[in-house]
Amino acid sequence: MATPGSGFWSFGSEDGSGDPENPGTARAWCQVAQKFTGGIGNKLCALLYGDAEKPAESGGSGPPRAAARKAACACNQKPCSCPKGDVNYAFLHATDLLPACDGERPTLAFLQDVVDILLQYVVKSFDRSTKVIDFHYPNELLQEYNWELADQPQNLEEILTHCQTTLKYAIKTGHPRYFNQLSTGLDMVGLAADWLTSTANTNMFTYEIAPVFVLLEYVTLKKMREIIGWPGGSGDGIFSPGGAISNMYAMMIARFKMFPEVKEKGMAAVPRLIAFTSEHSHFSLKKGAAALGIGTDSVILIKCDERGKMIPSDLERRILEAKQNGFVPFLVSATAGTTVYGAFDPLLAIADICKKYKIWMHVDAAWGGGLLMSRKHKWKVSGVERANSVTWNPHKMMGVPLQCSALLVREEGLMQNCNQMHASYLFQQDKHYDLSYDTGDKALQCGRHVDVFKLWLMWRAKGTTGFEAHVDKCLELAEYLYNIIKNREGYEMVFDGKPQHTNVCFWYIPPSLRTLEDNEERMSRLSKVAPVIKARMMEYGTTMVSYQPLGDKVNFFRMVISNPAATHQDIDFLIEEIERLGQDL
Amino acid sequence: MATPGSGFWSFGSEDGSGDPENPGTARAWCQVAQKFTGGIGNKLCALLYGDAEKPAESGGSGPPRAAARKAACACNQKPCSCPKGDVNYAFLHATDLLPACDGERPTLAFLQDVVDILLQYVVKSFDRSTKVIDFHYPNELLQEYNWELADQPQNLEEILTHCQTTLKYAIKTGHPRYFNQLSTGLDMVGLAADWLTSTANTNMFTYEIAPVFVLLEYVTLKKMREIIGWPGGSGDGIFSPGGAISNMYAMMIARFKMFPEVKEKGMAAVPRLIAFTSEHSHFSLKKGAAALGIGTDSVILIKCDERGKMIPSDLERRILEAKQNGFVPFLVSATAGTTVYGAFDPLLAIADICKKYKIWMHVDAAWGGGLLMSRKHKWKVSGVERANSVTWNPHKMMGVPLQCSALLVREEGLMQNCNQMHASYLFQQDKHYDLSYDTGDKALQCGRHVDVFKLWLMWRAKGTTGFEAHVDKCLELAEYLYNIIKNREGYEMVFDGKPQHTNVCFWYIPPSLRTLEDNEERMSRLSKVAPVIKARMMEYGTTMVSYQPLGDKVNFFRMVISNPAATHQDIDFLIEEIERLGQDL
Repeated sequence: MATPGSGFWSFGSEDGSGDPENPGTARAWCQVAQKFTGGIGNKLCALLYGDAEKPAESGGSGPPRAAARKAACACNQKPCSCPKGDVNYAFLHATDLLPACDGERPTLAFLQDVVDILLQYVVKSFDRSTKVIDFHYPNELLQEYNWELADQPQNLEEILTHCQTTLKYAIKTGHPRYFNQLSTGLDMVGLAADWLTSTANTNMFTYEIAPVFVLLEYVTLKKMREIIGWPGGSGDGIFSPGGAISNMYAMMIARFKMFPEVKEKGMAAVPRLIAFTSEHSHFSLKKGAAALGIGTDSVILIKCDERGKMIPSDLERRILEAKQNGFVPFLVSATAGTTVYGAFDPLLAIADICKKYKIWMHVDAAWGGGLLMSRKHKWKVSGVERANSVTWNPHKMMGVPLQCSALLVREEGLMQNCNQMHASYLFQQDKHYDLSYDTGDKALQCGRHVDVFKLWLMWRAKGTTGFEAHVDKCLELAEYLYNIIKNREGYEMVFDGKPQHTNVCFWYIPPSLRTLEDNEERMSRLSKVAPVIKARMMEYGTTMVSYQPLGDKVNFFRMVISNPAATHQDIDFLIEEIERLGQDL
Repeated sequence: MATPGSGFWSFGSEDGSGDPENPGTARAWCQVAQKFTGGIGNKLCALLYGDAEKPAESGGSGPPRAAARKAACACNQKPCSCPKGDVNYAFLHATDLLPACDGERPTLAFLQDVVDILLQYVVKSFDRSTKVIDFHYPNELLQEYNWELADQPQNLEEILTHCQTTLKYAIKTGHPRYFNQLSTGLDMVGLAADWLTSTANTNMFTYEIAPVFVLLEYVTLKKMREIIGWPGGSGDGIFSPGGAISNMYAMMIARFKMFPEVKEKGMAAVPRLIAFTSEHSHFSLKKGAAALGIGTDSVILIKCDERGKMIPSDLERRILEAKQNGFVPFLVSATAGTTVYGAFDPLLAIADICKKYKIWMHVDAAWGGGLLMSRKHKWKVSGVERANSVTWNPHKMMGVPLQCSALLVREEGLMQNCNQMHASYLFQQDKHYDLSYDTGDKALQCGRHVDVFKLWLMWRAKGTTGFEAHVDKCLELAEYLYNIIKNREGYEMVFDGKPQHTNVCFWYIPPSLRTLEDNEERMSRLSKVAPVIKARMMEYGTTMVSYQPLGDKVNFFRMVISNPAATHQDIDFLIEEIERLGQDL
């Protein structure tokens, strides 16, 4: 953490005139605030208010200053000697903001103050000296603060406090040591784009009310289809609220393609349908089958090899079995990047089987799709171009803010036919523009959030090569972790061999278990290790990584890396932290 | 639009020292910029940089100024004489931002610049002298700008330009004269909350990674259930990605309640199910039925009276008919606030019928739910407390930014049983906290966007009474519109009587049609009027209102008011604009 006079503090005043010890400088006011706040509050105070001398160097007659900024102290501490100006939030309410008459000034001040709080949080998120999480048990957190809703309004000072409090208890998902989920990290351009999306506050159903976003969805989905390898990027698609819904779309469309009458007649008019996916696939396939009236019993789980990849011969066997039972295989969902092992199903072999039996091939590349951006790693997804549909979540490996999930479909028009209901109040046929841009009727949703802009803007900012660099770096970090622990005392790998994705699955064996025989008692004790270490991690707040059992394997750690902030040192830290927290178990 | 020296310009310097005509003031630098930008750019330039004298009045030794702000000119015009400072975006890329080493400074500058662009847009959104829409046909818009994605990154200057360009073509959904959808307006506290949500960038599936948001969902849904009238606010619920999905959840849960085996066995194990909803209900009921394998033929549309309300006797007749055919009525979806007429189905009579025949009663109050906040108008939703489930979209009548839709369920635990799949990588049973807060497994989604915070923060800021005032005001405006046009020459109401919601449905009859006999030719000509007026509205960009045909009624305007910025003058403007644009037809 920077202290007064150190590098950060003197940022922007290389001549040293910004020294806070010099009471004659313009920033003297900040010194008192600094004493109250400590840490990052000070940093920002310095950054935002601290180099008044600079503009004079540029020849100005003194630095102009934002009225909006003046409205609030960036350090957000009371009492504070910052020149707060004349907007007093204690006397202001939501009704004083725009569209209120004279609402412009308090609005700009208020939004700027919120942004200051957010910027503080952003900076803090990347600071390794801060906690990933300030953990409280649910009942504690419920009591720690008054979260209740009331009849009467609160003033804007209270609202700003709520923002700060909410962030105080939030998980820093952008923190370099947050590895808990497939979606980690906080991309600055993606964040900016999401702020813009909120400000534009519109809905994807028609071109009429979302012209740019509809076009960007068109451009972006086409690009994604090109990368998948469909000729000329042709086909169809949609951004949906998450991979589970994307997978459900795929099931719906596959069913409709085979039995279009299902739309009107329901499953009653259709023979018993069977879907196939691997035993390591995502649970959303079963959720989707339950929802769609197919039933979870009709989702056959195909065996995987020791690396978690679907075994094609078992797939074929089960397809034949289903057919012999008089059932109709309608969908194979292969996984490119399984949730736990990060395994890639053998897509080419599966494509051959799907072709042979005329079954819709879906690829759930929610997690693995990102590898398509990497020339070095895309071979792992080879065969995806033969799929009929693909789920690809840019909010996972590509670091786009949540949520951003695409379903891509090779055949154009099918989604529309499957889902359209021709609502005349939205999709008027006598509009004055090309109606093919009113894409809303191909969705299951009516209103649909704008999820494309953050991906599009990040893509412009990073280029395909930027995503590639990110993917390559994360995979390199996973290999680094694997190389450290594969022969290290106290570790056992859940499966052998170099990780194919960034998933590294391992047990930490505390010293007390290392000499035990490999029997049930050891397994039982081992199963309790990861949960305890994880609980301690959260209580200390130093790092977060996931664990789970799988099949006959008791609780193990699943490390995943999608966080652009993570470095080799953070991987080292994770290992040390696991050992520190688990050695007494 | 404010001009130099006028009220706005001199904001913050009541002593007049901010007069831009006085070249000796600190703000002199802004004068050149002002010449380039015109309009709102100037306003902000003034607002953000224009009162350097003020801090001196507060006794400071000169105003400190944000390095972040210095990095960019708020007017966002090049060339510009604003002191741009030393961050040159033309040489910066996404890779220079956090988590890059030394990324803090460019990050804060960049995000602040994005915010400046957004603040400009916000202010502009409420300015009646600006267009609601700068309309371009899709092919024009595709050609007007390079939207394509490329391999190579672009610099941050280009990224900022993309943000500006995107907003240039966006619909100002907060504009006081935007009436096009049920969701209009831009709430400042909601916007701030959505920015915070983006910054926190997390996922609702577990308490582990969204502790505060999970608790706020709990608190907010409970409050909504209390308002619905379920004892002690008991029950269940979830925020889902829109009303269509909420309605689909209701169908799923109703089906599961009656035939829990459907989850494993699918619709094959279930008799033919029939859902009932009115002919004026939302198309999502049919979309849901198609998706769930029930089939659209199994959604029976019940007749409505002339005001668009479901006729209970027809409902009962159709239920009996279905039963006689050996089918199983499983759901009645009543509508509280239909999409076009804004009609409220007679919930109490429908509840009696549902009770009599033991059918799940769902109320789609996506649009009408907001009236529950108003003591004056909530009688229209009377009977909702007898529903088994309720869809209520705060992003409609309550003005919460998109999207925010709740499904509330009276029976606790049903959602969980219906949807849970026990994914062991997320919902570990040996976690160290109360697992009832891991709410993700009751959702159809896996990852789930945080939609609750904007509603919660708005509720704190406005109080229930603030929502009430908003609802009452919008309904008063609708009545005002109704009173103006009901007897005005050139208007015909689509249905008689005072609007029950803010929907006012009417035809504008151009002079050339007023003397025609009421025959087919007149109908045919009348059907073309609204589309042409709407197209002209969009081309002029002055206002936006929806139109559609319904049943045997040809295209008519459906005015809806949920926009907190709208006033009586805006209603007057709409009428005048319709007449101006339509009088020659």
